[in-house]
Amino acid sequence: MSSVDRKHWRWAATIGIGAVLWFVPVPAGVKPHAWHLLAVFVATIASFLLRPMAMGPMVLLSLMFLAASRTIGFKQVLSGFGDSTVWLVVAAFLIAGTVQRTGFGKRVALSLVKKFGKSTLGLGYALCGAELILGPVVPSNTARGGGILAPITQSLATSLDSHPTPEKRERAGSYLTLVGSHANLIAAAMFMTGMAANPLVSKAASSVFGIEFGWGTWALGALVPGIVGLALLPLAMMKLSPPELSDTRAAQEHAGRELSEMGTWSRNQKIMGGVFMMLLVLWSTKPVHGMGTGLVAWIGVLVLLISQVDGWDDIKDNGKAWDCLVWLGGLLAMANALKDEGVVDWFARSMQAQVAGISGLTVVVVLAVIYFYSMYGFSMLTAHISALVAAFFGVALAAGAPPLVTVALLAYFSCLCACTTNYSTGPVIIYFGLGYVPVGKWFRIGFLTSLYHLAIWLGLGLAWWKVLGWW
Amino acid sequence: MSSVDRKHWRWAATIGIGAVLWFVPVPAGVKPHAWHLLAVFVATIASFLLRPMAMGPMVLLSLMFLAASRTIGFKQVLSGFGDSTVWLVVAAFLIAGTVQRTGFGKRVALSLVKKFGKSTLGLGYALCGAELILGPVVPSNTARGGGILAPITQSLATSLDSHPTPEKRERAGSYLTLVGSHANLIAAAMFMTGMAANPLVSKAASSVFGIEFGWGTWALGALVPGIVGLALLPLAMMKLSPPELSDTRAAQEHAGRELSEMGTWSRNQKIMGGVFMMLLVLWSTKPVHGMGTGLVAWIGVLVLLISQVDGWDDIKDNGKAWDCLVWLGGLLAMANALKDEGVVDWFARSMQAQVAGISGLTVVVVLAVIYFYSMYGFSMLTAHISALVAAFFGVALAAGAPPLVTVALLAYFSCLCACTTNYSTGPVIIYFGLGYVPVGKWFRIGFLTSLYHLAIWLGLGLAWWKVLGWW
Repeated sequence: MSSVDRKHWRWAATIGIGAVLWFVPVPAGVKPHAWHLLAVFVATIASFLLRPMAMGPMVLLSLMFLAASRTIGFKQVLSGFGDSTVWLVVAAFLIAGTVQRTGFGKRVALSLVKKFGKSTLGLGYALCGAELILGPVVPSNTARGGGILAPITQSLATSLDSHPTPEKRERAGSYLTLVGSHANLIAAAMFMTGMAANPLVSKAASSVFGIEFGWGTWALGALVPGIVGLALLPLAMMKLSPPELSDTRAAQEHAGRELSEMGTWSRNQKIMGGVFMMLLVLWSTKPVHGMGTGLVAWIGVLVLLISQVDGWDDIKDNGKAWDCLVWLGGLLAMANALKDEGVVDWFARSMQAQVAGISGLTVVVVLAVIYFYSMYGFSMLTAHISALVAAFFGVALAAGAPPLVTVALLAYFSCLCACTTNYSTGPVIIYFGLGYVPVGKWFRIGFLTSLYHLAIWLGLGLAWWKVLGWW
Repeated sequence: MSSVDRKHWRWAATIGIGAVLWFVPVPAGVKPHAWHLLAVFVATIASFLLRPMAMGPMVLLSLMFLAASRTIGFKQVLSGFGDSTVWLVVAAFLIAGTVQRTGFGKRVALSLVKKFGKSTLGLGYALCGAELILGPVVPSNTARGGGILAPITQSLATSLDSHPTPEKRERAGSYLTLVGSHANLIAAAMFMTGMAANPLVSKAASSVFGIEFGWGTWALGALVPGIVGLALLPLAMMKLSPPELSDTRAAQEHAGRELSEMGTWSRNQKIMGGVFMMLLVLWSTKPVHGMGTGLVAWIGVLVLLISQVDGWDDIKDNGKAWDCLVWLGGLLAMANALKDEGVVDWFARSMQAQVAGISGLTVVVVLAVIYFYSMYGFSMLTAHISALVAAFFGVALAAGAPPLVTVALLAYFSCLCACTTNYSTGPVIIYFGLGYVPVGKWFRIGFLTSLYHLAIWLGLGLAWWKVLGWW
């Protein structure tokens, strides 16, 4: 099939899915235009997997189709573009650009390697530490993992004479790749600003349950299981994919050299570091000063602008941030409309009979595990979240499940579930692409890692949330 | 004064203006936080002239300051980013990028030159025609004048052996420069999408008078005076700055050569032309299909995307469009808040005594003339509009002036007034920068052109609006 044919086929499938849903008889209890909205929404999610166009233009197409067909109003179509969570993520993307541009991210990673990197295990901890530090402010897990840490991982492995060949890959590269990619997912799960689509979970939580699962709550719930998960990861990978090398002073020296090539902290790196600290402090002390997460993030951007660490051109030409504004804002507008038009309520009501008599917590745990492993069918975290999270919340609501635990489990699993495959999300694709881990091994270790996550978050996690009074 | 000192001085002046207003006693009849909002708004406008930073970051700084000081809420701060007029202008910027990228704009201009360019007068008409055609879809008058037509004007002059030297400039270059730059301003005045800040006038109109002065109304009111103004401009400039040359077949041949170098219409140029026609038809037939101007513009963008005339990268990396989203959205949010908090009403009420007993129409005409010539004090159309238009509307309201005529005059004068100086707006600066017209002559002809505009728009314009029943 030629690439043009394939493209046509992708369009046909996307439009076909939408058209079938649009024209089937509308179920009782749903308003016709609400059903049409659902049809367009489902076709949009399908398009993320079928990819006739990139996400941004597909979301725009769906929005404009909804407006032109008068399914929802133009004002409502644009409402997501003025949403505070969307602008939080835009700000975080802009800050992430500065983290990369100033070399701040690279410096943090290299410093950790220099400090802890005299053994393979130490290098693993350095990668986990870097992910934990950068997680809160780099909302593109691809930029963080693929853009900052994967290149460093690769150069560390190379400096240890570990190459993506059957003879050399097990020396250190295989181990480091696995630690790096799985640490990325844990850091993505721990912070609302750790992955671009995380706010969709918060938004759905406020739609369905009417609770605010904001930056602080998100981080608080992840604190214990997240730290433990990261702290044990390098040890777990020692068992799952033991490196042949344990003395890695060569890599440590390599990092030291790279660090001295970078010279002393530049003015811009210092300011970036200061902004970084400021963000963490203000984000985690919201009750004291009352400023929302988005406002704080924009104050950070403005400090970078006024101090001329960033030029306005760096901001306005940051295509990734504006791309995110378009697709995230558009998806939020559709998700909000689905809620406003009663589709989510209708779904929850229809599920009520199915889950009657089962305890709420049981339902949530079962849902969470299904949610986790359904990721095998997705090649993008955003699509997975958009497709399922509101519906799963609906079922939990119908079962009378404790809201905070439900939201927490699905929030954290939204990123952790990417451990399962080698095609789940950008950084995983990039780490896998380094070539140190063959595909069979990636899947095998991915499955074992999924059990590791389930044990920690369903065990320790539930206990921690009990302490917090979430159930 | 060093450039760093100058920068500090600019910051000090901007902040000083805001701080003085913030801390002076609040006038009776204004809520304190509404007055604080006004202080920040005035400082923002002042910053456009003082330029401590670019417009975009200054607007963001003001917005975040308003939110952090709890003058207005964060939700309200972001509300402009979901505004349909703002997204109309963003879409138009994206389309303008395609007009330039595909060579469609250049082709239109060169075709007109080839057709009408055998005399200097004919070349003048070709420039006017190109402005009239491109005006509706290229909302950056700088992109249209500076990016597409000024380079063509320059190469036409050069091919006529007219250079920016005292001996050679009067051959043709001086005449063509003047026609080109003043035609740009007339086209900017004629269409709501002819200049980026035009929607601010519509927005103020709906705030103060509660009337919708949308794309269709805007174009309808400008139809007769705009066409006449453009049609007589090349003749008027013949009197004001007669070119030595009248036979310009050399330039015509030059354009013909450039056109044949471009070859036949490419697929992308044809599609761009089709989208262009579609936009004009749909924009001017809104009553028939009911789709708003913004929705229509986005349908245009989507056609360009789906047909792969544009890639998504062309869209998301179009920094100009996102810059405009930020500053226009932010200004609109502040302007809306000023209205919602009663500042505009308060101003109108306080003016009531001053204008009592004078006929509404007289007040409007006097206001319009003051508005026009106050442009001498501004170096940017956007700043001029933002600073004055709502307040002037307020006075007109207090005087009981006919709303549509008031809005029309200030709307059209908002762009026409840029004829006065050589520093008023991007394309004027660029045309002036070609060097064919010395500064003294530019001002002298600028003033005479202002009389030309006043005669046409206060004479023919008022007559036409009488026919339309606007007063």
